[in-house]
Amino acid sequence: MQKALAEASETTTTTTTTASEADPSATPSLAPEERDRLFQAPFDVTDLYIRTAESCERLVGLSAAWTHLDAESSAERYLAEKVLEKELSWAAHIGVSAIILPELALHSDRFINYARLICRAIHEFSFLQIWLRVAVGGGGGPSSSSGSDPQKAWKNWTTLKQMCGHSARLQVTLILGADLPNGALLNQWFAEPLKCVVVPTSTFTTNSKGYPVLSKAHQHLVRRLLNFTHYFVIEETAAEGPTGLTGHHQKFLRYLAAENPEMSTLEKFAAGYKDYLQSPLQPLMDHLESATYATFEQDPVKYQQYERAIYEALLDRFPPADCSNTVPAEEARNCVIFVVGAGRGPLVDRSLAAADQARRRVKIYALEKNPNAYVTLQRKQSTTWKERVTVVFGDMRYWQPPERADILVSELLGSFGDNELSPECLDGAQRLLKPEGISIPSSYSSYLAPLSSSKLYNQVAALNGIAHFQTPFVVLFDAVDCLYPPQQVWQFHHPNPTVPSDATALARIDNHHNTRYSVNHFQSTNSALVHGLAGYFDAVLYKNVTLSIHPDSHTPGMFSWFPIYFPLKTPILVPEGAVIETHLWRLTSASKVWYEWCLTTEVATTVTNDDTQEDGQSADSDHTPTKPHTNVFSTTIHNLNGSSYWIGL
Amino acid sequence: MQKALAEASETTTTTTTTASEADPSATPSLAPEERDRLFQAPFDVTDLYIRTAESCERLVGLSAAWTHLDAESSAERYLAEKVLEKELSWAAHIGVSAIILPELALHSDRFINYARLICRAIHEFSFLQIWLRVAVGGGGGPSSSSGSDPQKAWKNWTTLKQMCGHSARLQVTLILGADLPNGALLNQWFAEPLKCVVVPTSTFTTNSKGYPVLSKAHQHLVRRLLNFTHYFVIEETAAEGPTGLTGHHQKFLRYLAAENPEMSTLEKFAAGYKDYLQSPLQPLMDHLESATYATFEQDPVKYQQYERAIYEALLDRFPPADCSNTVPAEEARNCVIFVVGAGRGPLVDRSLAAADQARRRVKIYALEKNPNAYVTLQRKQSTTWKERVTVVFGDMRYWQPPERADILVSELLGSFGDNELSPECLDGAQRLLKPEGISIPSSYSSYLAPLSSSKLYNQVAALNGIAHFQTPFVVLFDAVDCLYPPQQVWQFHHPNPTVPSDATALARIDNHHNTRYSVNHFQSTNSALVHGLAGYFDAVLYKNVTLSIHPDSHTPGMFSWFPIYFPLKTPILVPEGAVIETHLWRLTSASKVWYEWCLTTEVATTVTNDDTQEDGQSADSDHTPTKPHTNVFSTTIHNLNGSSYWIGL
Repeated sequence: MQKALAEASETTTTTTTTASEADPSATPSLAPEERDRLFQAPFDVTDLYIRTAESCERLVGLSAAWTHLDAESSAERYLAEKVLEKELSWAAHIGVSAIILPELALHSDRFINYARLICRAIHEFSFLQIWLRVAVGGGGGPSSSSGSDPQKAWKNWTTLKQMCGHSARLQVTLILGADLPNGALLNQWFAEPLKCVVVPTSTFTTNSKGYPVLSKAHQHLVRRLLNFTHYFVIEETAAEGPTGLTGHHQKFLRYLAAENPEMSTLEKFAAGYKDYLQSPLQPLMDHLESATYATFEQDPVKYQQYERAIYEALLDRFPPADCSNTVPAEEARNCVIFVVGAGRGPLVDRSLAAADQARRRVKIYALEKNPNAYVTLQRKQSTTWKERVTVVFGDMRYWQPPERADILVSELLGSFGDNELSPECLDGAQRLLKPEGISIPSSYSSYLAPLSSSKLYNQVAALNGIAHFQTPFVVLFDAVDCLYPPQQVWQFHHPNPTVPSDATALARIDNHHNTRYSVNHFQSTNSALVHGLAGYFDAVLYKNVTLSIHPDSHTPGMFSWFPIYFPLKTPILVPEGAVIETHLWRLTSASKVWYEWCLTTEVATTVTNDDTQEDGQSADSDHTPTKPHTNVFSTTIHNLNGSSYWIGL
Repeated sequence: MQKALAEASETTTTTTTTASEADPSATPSLAPEERDRLFQAPFDVTDLYIRTAESCERLVGLSAAWTHLDAESSAERYLAEKVLEKELSWAAHIGVSAIILPELALHSDRFINYARLICRAIHEFSFLQIWLRVAVGGGGGPSSSSGSDPQKAWKNWTTLKQMCGHSARLQVTLILGADLPNGALLNQWFAEPLKCVVVPTSTFTTNSKGYPVLSKAHQHLVRRLLNFTHYFVIEETAAEGPTGLTGHHQKFLRYLAAENPEMSTLEKFAAGYKDYLQSPLQPLMDHLESATYATFEQDPVKYQQYERAIYEALLDRFPPADCSNTVPAEEARNCVIFVVGAGRGPLVDRSLAAADQARRRVKIYALEKNPNAYVTLQRKQSTTWKERVTVVFGDMRYWQPPERADILVSELLGSFGDNELSPECLDGAQRLLKPEGISIPSSYSSYLAPLSSSKLYNQVAALNGIAHFQTPFVVLFDAVDCLYPPQQVWQFHHPNPTVPSDATALARIDNHHNTRYSVNHFQSTNSALVHGLAGYFDAVLYKNVTLSIHPDSHTPGMFSWFPIYFPLKTPILVPEGAVIETHLWRLTSASKVWYEWCLTTEVATTVTNDDTQEDGQSADSDHTPTKPHTNVFSTTIHNLNGSSYWIGL
């Protein structure tokens, strides 16, 4: 093992001299005795840097840079293998948490033999993490050239991941070259398990006072990286030779780490949820807890939007010209508002506020099926709302009201819009509405896009059980590469004219009109590894009053909903230029609703050999040469028949 | 369900009239009452064809041909789905073994929705087999056109298999069109689970006497198919309309089935082993049973070759000019032959026969480590061989002989050559040989090629346990598409000059010289689904006397070895034009030898969108447009560290 061990702590910047042991480009020509020592003898006492076992947990091993794991000569490779074996065994013995291994050689035929050694280390040492060096951008030393394909380093890394079965203990040490690639190619790395960053001294430039600094682009990247790791290594590059003078480089990185801006209150709220997988709520089947209601009610924006929507609806339903409803004309008729699924009553408060602002007389019915929340509603009615509000205990799908509503207000939306069964509930409730009555929300749409995220994938895998890969999760995306702009998959409208007037019974017999099937196409620009689908929604509460968690139109400051993540059992590699086809079904039976999904990629191949048919007399004749060959790579259909995940009606 | 149910029995030919119910190309326009009946009501008693439950096991269901599972109208699709659901439920209820479902529409966007219904049926009905109709060749009716891609039907089938997770209950009903595709495209289907063959009457031609016959190519294909299934259906095509006159068509198929030639004795021996997975022998670690020796000794060819090789070696070692050894010159020196791993003695017999034929005096030592086989050797020595043979109990790697051998004879070869540890054994034994002594065999080579076989894959999957996918199996290939000519992966030579003269101890300390790593490239012509690797060997016994199970040079009549099959955990789709790279390692520790393998495909993609970099200022500049984009799809590395399979030293 290389004698320098990077001590890891918060915002550690460590200097190593990869060039000091041996020039990595030189062929090692060891004397036979030295070779024998490496093969047979244990490490020398001078190799022992660590005195106490406790300190090892915070240490990261650096494997020798001079070995040639991808050498052409099988004897050299054998030597390198033996050295690596000893290093790994030593690292596992002293108990370091991770070991940094050399890059995969980009154009070597022996690449996969080295990959095998990495897979083997992961297999053999159950606790050791492998932090593989990966160079992004050119100018980062002799081995960091990416050749003609700017994605070559990422592709090799991805091949290695496939060979290791996507092990979570295979992680990335990013080497920042002087020339950074474009945004999309950098974003890819943020979907990978970034553990360490190496900044070669050659990546620094010198400012007017002679001190080492990083370019604006590099500073921006380092600030992003600081959100993911505080393990930074400054490495003296071979071209300059070891100087030991890296204090100013360290100072500059520490300066960047220190000036990382403070988070806002909203960001602090979100921080605890980043990449944290939550099971979607089942508010229809389960009774929500008080704390869940409390969290919802904290949203500073959502209820403002509801109040605005109710206000606009009140004005439209009882226009100013028709002043018969205006306060205080006592004899005028009330505007009847049903708040269905009232919970602890925030929408009742907002309805009252909207009525006051619009100067309209309202009569509100607050309906709730959760007996525990109903207790709170009763108290509020008796202490605050008084005769303006009638509280009712019951299910909106079966309640028989004394009169019908002008406005039906509900908040039944999930992260994917319809995933908390808003369509089924509101179908059952729309018979409560007068013929020209208004539903708030009036419509909502779901959106989908493929995403890449090793972190999310590994978290699902860690749950141990195939069922988890067939369950959508609510999650605030962080270490995620959102590869494509989301596309709309479907919409629901309320009231829905196709629902029969007495929908109570029907809802349980045939819910077919709420099934959906959407096929969406995404044209990939770069090669990508897709780990699942990201889901979003937006909703029209009333006319131009909306709620949205779609990335392009997210309602500012609203935090009630995080996106939804539909995982894939096996990540699927999508070549550049391939078309990704997503298939999403919303399906239903008499007792439940569920999603099924699968993803296919249509890959058009370049046939390099013109003789595509060896003996194809008949085949050649009906083969049109203008159409390229295509093949479809497909995942399995996830959650078939709702076997792993469903929402109870 | 369509009222005709094909009764399945040996060489059944059944006539069905797909056109009789409704023209499949016509859009069904059912009256609302009829639609209601299909949705809600049970089947009518007139639908009931079957009277006894016992008969159902031999029946195969045919689903209605008039439903539009891939209709553009979602209402039509919904109707078709409901009908299919009822049919499947009915089929499962009455207990038929399989149901024949309509083709996947080749160019439909709804294709994958139908695929979902098939996956669902497999998921829901645990015993029902799905025999999907697949058309090969044109002219087989309105739906059998394969468009511009001659592999389109196979590709759709493969997409479906991927979506269903390669279920073993998804099987093929092959519809033979009038125009058959070329050999390679037909061969693909023999690697799929063929259960039923449909021959449309339109595929028949009329002979001079006015009777329906099949073309030579069709006859040849039907004969091949008869080895896989006896379920044949003659189907009257829509163009002609139902006539009910298919008796002559049936007669013709029965004639082809009857004339299928009798098998030779060798074929009969092989028949029981077709596609039957056997674990490779471990003759070094285990002691073989007497019956295993008996099977080996039956091979009519192998021992002839050995006798020839020993004869040639004897003549070369003691040339005719040098008659000092010629019988009966009593004073001349003996030719010393060591038969190492003598088993029950067949090679001792052959050595004696060769010596007699060559008129050379020999002294034979027969060495055996199996104490049970040694009993037989002792008896043969005392009753037959007498003083010409010395029998020795011991391991060739450790035996200390009284003299050295002129010729060392062994039969330690496995299906993959070195897989029964011949290299390790002969390394340990070569110190028994005189300096210019001869080893029989003198060298052997291993060969590898990717193969496709749903049957072999499903058999490994049925063993239930990931370890089985990491174990090579000895198997006589039958329902296998050997996609590519095998390539040599490595060789072993004996005696090996690099082995130190006293190899006894070394064999246990460092066996590195017997490790191997081979990378082989196969250029795919057609799109293929690879299920694993086929392994073969050939050996040079002495000079031009060889043994081979390589398909191109198989020693005629020899049946001692079947090929070896290295499975893959997940089949890998290889597009036409892609390069398959196989990686095979032979690895060793002090106590064992094992193989690891993985397979990658390098796919060069056609980027249809010219703007391959959205915002790529820096990326565009270092991207050479002449080089196509390539991506590597890789399997995991199988049997890492010999975790599932190894051969004990």
